[in-house]
Amino acid sequence: MTQIKNIGLFTSGGDAPGMNAAIRAVVRTAIYYDIAVTGIRRGYDGMTKGDFIPMNRKSVSNIIQRGGTILKTARCDNFRTPEGRKQAYDQLKKHNVDALVAIGGDGTFTGAKVFGSEYDIPVIGLPGTIDNDLMGTDFTIGYDTAINTVVEAVDKIRDTAESHDRLFIVEVMGRDSGLIALRTGIAAGAEAILIPESKGGMEGLFNRLEHGRKDKTSRIVIVAEGEEAGGAFEVGRLVQEKFPHYDTRISILGHIQRGGAPSCMDRVLASRVGAAAVEALRDGHRNEMIGIIHNEIAYTPFEHAIKHHIEINPNLLKLVEILSM
Amino acid sequence: MTQIKNIGLFTSGGDAPGMNAAIRAVVRTAIYYDIAVTGIRRGYDGMTKGDFIPMNRKSVSNIIQRGGTILKTARCDNFRTPEGRKQAYDQLKKHNVDALVAIGGDGTFTGAKVFGSEYDIPVIGLPGTIDNDLMGTDFTIGYDTAINTVVEAVDKIRDTAESHDRLFIVEVMGRDSGLIALRTGIAAGAEAILIPESKGGMEGLFNRLEHGRKDKTSRIVIVAEGEEAGGAFEVGRLVQEKFPHYDTRISILGHIQRGGAPSCMDRVLASRVGAAAVEALRDGHRNEMIGIIHNEIAYTPFEHAIKHHIEINPNLLKLVEILSM
Amino acid sequence: MTQIKNIGLFTSGGDAPGMNAAIRAVVRTAIYYDIAVTGIRRGYDGMTKGDFIPMNRKSVSNIIQRGGTILKTARCDNFRTPEGRKQAYDQLKKHNVDALVAIGGDGTFTGAKVFGSEYDIPVIGLPGTIDNDLMGTDFTIGYDTAINTVVEAVDKIRDTAESHDRLFIVEVMGRDSGLIALRTGIAAGAEAILIPESKGGMEGLFNRLEHGRKDKTSRIVIVAEGEEAGGAFEVGRLVQEKFPHYDTRISILGHIQRGGAPSCMDRVLASRVGAAAVEALRDGHRNEMIGIIHNEIAYTPFEHAIKHHIEINPNLLKLVEILSM
Amino acid sequence: MTQIKNIGLFTSGGDAPGMNAAIRAVVRTAIYYDIAVTGIRRGYDGMTKGDFIPMNRKSVSNIIQRGGTILKTARCDNFRTPEGRKQAYDQLKKHNVDALVAIGGDGTFTGAKVFGSEYDIPVIGLPGTIDNDLMGTDFTIGYDTAINTVVEAVDKIRDTAESHDRLFIVEVMGRDSGLIALRTGIAAGAEAILIPESKGGMEGLFNRLEHGRKDKTSRIVIVAEGEEAGGAFEVGRLVQEKFPHYDTRISILGHIQRGGAPSCMDRVLASRVGAAAVEALRDGHRNEMIGIIHNEIAYTPFEHAIKHHIEINPNLLKLVEILSM
Repeated sequence: MTQIKNIGLFTSGGDAPGMNAAIRAVVRTAIYYDIAVTGIRRGYDGMTKGDFIPMNRKSVSNIIQRGGTILKTARCDNFRTPEGRKQAYDQLKKHNVDALVAIGGDGTFTGAKVFGSEYDIPVIGLPGTIDNDLMGTDFTIGYDTAINTVVEAVDKIRDTAESHDRLFIVEVMGRDSGLIALRTGIAAGAEAILIPESKGGMEGLFNRLEHGRKDKTSRIVIVAEGEEAGGAFEVGRLVQEKFPHYDTRISILGHIQRGGAPSCMDRVLASRVGAAAVEALRDGHRNEMIGIIHNEIAYTPFEHAIKHHIEINPNLLKLVEILSM
Repeated sequence: MTQIKNIGLFTSGGDAPGMNAAIRAVVRTAIYYDIAVTGIRRGYDGMTKGDFIPMNRKSVSNIIQRGGTILKTARCDNFRTPEGRKQAYDQLKKHNVDALVAIGGDGTFTGAKVFGSEYDIPVIGLPGTIDNDLMGTDFTIGYDTAINTVVEAVDKIRDTAESHDRLFIVEVMGRDSGLIALRTGIAAGAEAILIPESKGGMEGLFNRLEHGRKDKTSRIVIVAEGEEAGGAFEVGRLVQEKFPHYDTRISILGHIQRGGAPSCMDRVLASRVGAAAVEALRDGHRNEMIGIIHNEIAYTPFEHAIKHHIEINPNLLKLVEILSM
Repeated sequence: MTQIKNIGLFTSGGDAPGMNAAIRAVVRTAIYYDIAVTGIRRGYDGMTKGDFIPMNRKSVSNIIQRGGTILKTARCDNFRTPEGRKQAYDQLKKHNVDALVAIGGDGTFTGAKVFGSEYDIPVIGLPGTIDNDLMGTDFTIGYDTAINTVVEAVDKIRDTAESHDRLFIVEVMGRDSGLIALRTGIAAGAEAILIPESKGGMEGLFNRLEHGRKDKTSRIVIVAEGEEAGGAFEVGRLVQEKFPHYDTRISILGHIQRGGAPSCMDRVLASRVGAAAVEALRDGHRNEMIGIIHNEIAYTPFEHAIKHHIEINPNLLKLVEILSM
Repeated sequence: MTQIKNIGLFTSGGDAPGMNAAIRAVVRTAIYYDIAVTGIRRGYDGMTKGDFIPMNRKSVSNIIQRGGTILKTARCDNFRTPEGRKQAYDQLKKHNVDALVAIGGDGTFTGAKVFGSEYDIPVIGLPGTIDNDLMGTDFTIGYDTAINTVVEAVDKIRDTAESHDRLFIVEVMGRDSGLIALRTGIAAGAEAILIPESKGGMEGLFNRLEHGRKDKTSRIVIVAEGEEAGGAFEVGRLVQEKFPHYDTRISILGHIQRGGAPSCMDRVLASRVGAAAVEALRDGHRNEMIGIIHNEIAYTPFEHAIKHHIEINPNLLKLVEILSM
């Protein structure tokens, strides 16, 4: 059992629904084990500047249902430099912080990995990102909420698509990953899904539009930001050029995908890994991300967690095609 | 009492939540008075082509909660020509339709007004548009749902704005009207609202950003599509140019504003005016739009309904300024 | 212009969505006019005990979207006694509070009326209750949100009713008032609505079930808590007794009706009357409730506001019958 | 490859969100493989009566987002008798149905198992129930939606609990299973969770209320229908008796838990197993339920699927205790 006395807790990178539930779990579990928690505001930026606040049970009352992060988040170029990390370390020492819990995505863990190798402060990471693009966990905190938000938005768009016999190109988040697009595309009954991991999506779409069911008058296409053709505007332009008789419209869902009250599953995931983070630090774990794989707590070294060559199940792409016919 | 035997019912223009509730009300009320209802699909386009379907009680079962319009809607340039209107008239005669109920906005009523002056078929209009830009009714069908959709979306965006200390420029619908922007801006706690009806909004915004509260780190600006500067992208560009230290982001809410299950108030409004439309035809009304003013059914000739110089209450703009300080 | 320097602000009675938006509006508007605001926690109870907190701009940041009331609310029998009111007055004097804004319903205003007649402290009331049962305002703060919550819940119940061919008796709030039942009944496409203001509802319902459309296999009945027969359980029992072949189910919506993020309209209403309350105090108003009638700020003496013989529009009851056929 | 030409498809037991998505997936996948689909209305009842409808691609258009089941569901005592099953078989033969896909829960599969052992018609089951109480799948169709509905409802109740300093006893579905209570209890930040699988819950709750944090003024307790003490009313009575100073309230969420638009995950699950059901029949599977375990399609004989001694993870009950302190 490692003697941890004061956990520094922060969120970093893009905010994700459920981060507050994770914060609550870390704080309450730490207190349960008689460990103090120091909130670090605005991620690495606040760490280098000593923007610290003590946290108690009440600090995390009534936040489990809130989107965003009460600890705020920010970019920090300074932390990428050895000097920045030195400043951070000095601040942590000054405030007697002897362990860290970092909630975020691959950028967060990249920083944590370097910091953990340079300084003797154990760091545990929690997967907080809507993108679901981390190894070492079936789902990341925020993903389930984000895909529900997308599906609710597309349900609204479908009302209009149906009423006007339109083809809608809907862009969802995912610069490097099609995981949001894939599940939401299935759930939205999309005609086609264009994602970064899969080439030739445009031809497939053209093929569908050319040879598909003629009595189908409205269609939804889900496009991940980072797909080959360059996003919804470009896809829309190409479709309109080739199929001018379609009444094509574009919708970029944008930032609404990051916010909102977290779903039940996101809160459960966040609560479980938040509690496990404290226990992991007590058990001597360090430089690992805590996730849930097959309903069990899983520990993954940062360098593996951030590799994220998440494979797209080709059966699911095929499924989209079959089901939208 | 005019002897109406068969009402032709259609939706036209942009779809709006609550149109189906209005369709249900017209159909059921007509049947109650022993009047047949002929559904005309895709608005004036279907009217010219004879795309007609008989409607009974069951045709409108379980639709009160659905967004969009089961009768579909479409543009129709043909109806703007005398020939097109003649075709429409011939189709109506052929199917023994002796009165019309048109659900839509100013474009719909402009067509109805011309048609009603050329042919002896009484037409009653129902205000179905999310824009709330018609005279003769306190609210249009769809407006209440649309502003709730906007506010829910901005609530999500605020989670991110707060977490990242960002300034968000959120664009809502309203090419000629700031009515969606105005109420949603108040409800979203916006810093500023830019609308077509009000000049000098940018300077006001700049002033706020320059002299406003320094401890306020996140801000929401609501921008109507048709505002002076040219929409959210242009506003964002101008803000970023002048205030590069703000972390400015853009969000275009787009088509999600048109869909979704209608709010309670929209369903009640649609149900009331839908029933009143049938009674108005029986009572000999024609070429009028039915709305609700001060909780009472109101009848407004088409030419007045579509004038829509809806005035923006300046107190409400002032209110936004005071409350966001 | 009356010189008000320090407004005591409290919520009282049942909580309602939009109370926080009203609190925000009072605080920010007061500060705009250089008036201090003292938050009084837990209504009259906190007033008698001196549970006061100073409020500034930041105290009301990011609360416009939250249900409930950050000032909390409570019952207070003590305030009904002259001694209790004397204690309250002494506490207000001690803290230099020279005016009050009370957000609540008829119980709140009854207390305010007595207090305002005994002591020289001007009181302004804001209509905060989901029941909509106050004179002097078209709508009370919270009503619009509550009816949307009911309608969303009944939409879910309808899925089951339709799938199982069931008759659902759904009980909504309203001990003395059928206003929630009336609008939600129309919006839910209810078969019948039973409300305290209308006698003979059960016979009407029996009549519908006996002679109504035979091909209609699922039905929703909306019942206000305070209706004649005694609520949903009793109505269900009577229906089941008389129509054993119906598969009848009961649902009591209960407390979910009080909570949730306020609707756009509730936030706008709360913001407007909140700001107007401060201006009214400055203009010398006292012992009045501020509402909105026909889109204009309206001032109603407390004794009139709480009379609440709100009449139910008989046309709307008739409408339910016609539209559900 | 088995030559299946006509699949009979039905839903049975309590309806669950996502059943329509599963229906759509079965129909479209069957058509993809040139197999006809015959919809059987109202489960086994319709099967014995020959209430059959042919289904094509369009029959399942625009239903993926709808709660309930378009094929309806019903109880059928007749099917429990050999005569009833004989009638069902005769109807299937008459309509050339040579395979069945049954969407439902343990009652459904119990019937399917018996039928499948008596007659030579292969049956494949899909797990459609909000209770998540089937072996052979990580989640059942409808569970994810139901727990989100519960959590949204409790979020609303928490607004009132916080505002009034109340203790709420909230009853959720689960006559034999605490799985809905468990996850929603964690996600709602509940004080305690009372479930059928765990004894001594009341003493634990009493202990919490007696020795728990004194500055915590509002509390949520989640109670499964089937827990030891007898449900929320009884739990509430016992709490009130022992802790009369708590302001205790009861809320029975009831039937809203069954309805609503399915969540993204429920639609994906339903789509995947729906497609897999058709492929399983083609591959010669019979008398098995198709689920997803660890993100892979899994096949479980009916007799194993319905055993449902789902174990409750004791760590999760402990987690509730730690996190609500």
